[in-house]
Amino acid sequence: MNIKPLADRVVVKMVEAEETTKSGIILAGSAKEKPQVAEIIAVGPGGLVDGKEVKMYLSAGQKVLLSKYAGTEVKIDGVEYTILRQSDVLAVVE
Amino acid sequence: MNIKPLADRVVVKMVEAEETTKSGIILAGSAKEKPQVAEIIAVGPGGLVDGKEVKMYLSAGQKVLLSKYAGTEVKIDGVEYTILRQSDVLAVVE
Amino acid sequence: MNIKPLADRVVVKMVEAEETTKSGIILAGSAKEKPQVAEIIAVGPGGLVDGKEVKMYLSAGQKVLLSKYAGTEVKIDGVEYTILRQSDVLAVVE
Amino acid sequence: MNIKPLADRVVVKMVEAEETTKSGIILAGSAKEKPQVAEIIAVGPGGLVDGKEVKMYLSAGQKVLLSKYAGTEVKIDGVEYTILRQSDVLAVVE
Amino acid sequence: MNIKPLADRVVVKMVEAEETTKSGIILAGSAKEKPQVAEIIAVGPGGLVDGKEVKMYLSAGQKVLLSKYAGTEVKIDGVEYTILRQSDVLAVVE
Amino acid sequence: MNIKPLADRVVVKMVEAEETTKSGIILAGSAKEKPQVAEIIAVGPGGLVDGKEVKMYLSAGQKVLLSKYAGTEVKIDGVEYTILRQSDVLAVVE
Amino acid sequence: MNIKPLADRVVVKMVEAEETTKSGIILAGSAKEKPQVAEIIAVGPGGLVDGKEVKMYLSAGQKVLLSKYAGTEVKIDGVEYTILRQSDVLAVVE
Repeated sequence: MNIKPLADRVVVKMVEAEETTKSGIILAGSAKEKPQVAEIIAVGPGGLVDGKEVKMYLSAGQKVLLSKYAGTEVKIDGVEYTILRQSDVLAVVE
Repeated sequence: MNIKPLADRVVVKMVEAEETTKSGIILAGSAKEKPQVAEIIAVGPGGLVDGKEVKMYLSAGQKVLLSKYAGTEVKIDGVEYTILRQSDVLAVVE
Repeated sequence: MNIKPLADRVVVKMVEAEETTKSGIILAGSAKEKPQVAEIIAVGPGGLVDGKEVKMYLSAGQKVLLSKYAGTEVKIDGVEYTILRQSDVLAVVE
Repeated sequence: MNIKPLADRVVVKMVEAEETTKSGIILAGSAKEKPQVAEIIAVGPGGLVDGKEVKMYLSAGQKVLLSKYAGTEVKIDGVEYTILRQSDVLAVVE
Repeated sequence: MNIKPLADRVVVKMVEAEETTKSGIILAGSAKEKPQVAEIIAVGPGGLVDGKEVKMYLSAGQKVLLSKYAGTEVKIDGVEYTILRQSDVLAVVE
Repeated sequence: MNIKPLADRVVVKMVEAEETTKSGIILAGSAKEKPQVAEIIAVGPGGLVDGKEVKMYLSAGQKVLLSKYAGTEVKIDGVEYTILRQSDVLAVVE
Repeated sequence: MNIKPLADRVVVKMVEAEETTKSGIILAGSAKEKPQVAEIIAVGPGGLVDGKEVKMYLSAGQKVLLSKYAGTEVKIDGVEYTILRQSDVLAVVE
């Protein structure tokens, strides 16, 4: 099963809190907040979005930080994903 | 009876929850939320929308994921459809 | 008596619920919701609207589906009409 | 005494409810709603409004339908007028 | 003491209610509402405002009608003035 | 210690209420409202702001009137300053 | 571990209140307010942001003042950072 994001959207999978701690990244605030570190699973084609040309600069496999509350959650084959616009991705972590 | 969506709109038919589960896609959150997987039934002509040229990249028969709360619901010949803008379609699933 | 809509507006007359059922189209939700199927009575000239050129693609006599809450209602010679922007018309039904 | 509307504004005088009924136009809803039929008294010069060129297509003497809540009311020499943007005028009635 | 409004702003002095009545202009609604008739005291230079070229068409000495709630009030040498954008001035009265 | 405002921002120092009264300018409303007269301390470079070219027309030393609630307050070396966009400055007083 | 901000974003580290006081900068209001002085840690590449070309004028190591409530907080290797748009940085302090 495959999700192909449209326009300037990307599909990401949130990185588990435990995994996050191992890699040294944890979020400020209470543990109940939605985690903000995610791995990019798929990247849309970009192109004209709301009349403006958008180039995609993200690629699958990158670890990224997301804006809080960004995107829509879906569950596929038992795994939760988030679909959001590339412009709602704040930073790449390496 | 036939619905022809205008401008950058598409007509979709929500995929039943049972059918959704079989294909391996279910939504996060409670079962009472509006299902987000739909099949595209008809695609508008695109063209100038709010002064910006819009090209249609969706086509009838595709399975798609929708933004929550996107679109307007109508019932035709006993079947419920949703009419929404192409830009409110998040991803194609295959 | 005659209504000539201005700019990118159209004048429509809501189709009665009974008539709607006969033609096979009924609306989702409770019967008390405003009906969304309408016939186009008159079409504005289009032209520059908010600095953008708008072409009218609707014409009198078409049956259309409207956005909920779209437009302003007026009563002329005892008949209720709705005046709305062409862009608030969702689809043509045939 | 004279009011000269600026930019893309027009000055209108609401048509009395009685007069409205005679001409066959009455408004939907309760009688307490603000009447929406008006006569155009004066028309602004148009020109650049918010960086966009606006041409005036209305002229004094026309009977028009207004958006609800459109404009600002003033009283001059004991007569109430409404000043609103041309784009808030919905239709001409003849 | 001198106020020089910036960009597309004008400085106006509200015309007293008594004076207003003499000249035949009074406002609709209760007497407690802020009066809307004003005299223009100073006019800004216009020019690029939010990336758009604005030409000033008002001049000192004109009597004008203002949008309700438009502008900011200041008191200079014991006299109250209002500073507002030219586009918030509705009409010139003569 | 030095503050260099960025883009189209200016740094101002509010003029004390006493000083304001001497110069003949006081604000309308209660004495508890934030004073609106300020002296310009530093001016940003202007340039492209939100995709639009902005030229700075203010300069250090000018006395100005501010929009209510405009800007952000900071305290440096025990002195309070306000940083705001040039477009939130209403007028120059001389 | 490394954060690379995307588009027109910068990563900053808030300067401790104590450190702030030493350098002579403290914030107006109660001590519980979020500190607004920060050091720039990393700067994004700029480029097309929402269809507009953005050039980055900030660089790592600069001390800056931030808009209140600007940005998103993250914790990396036990250190809290804030990610925000360059346009939400008010001023450089030297």
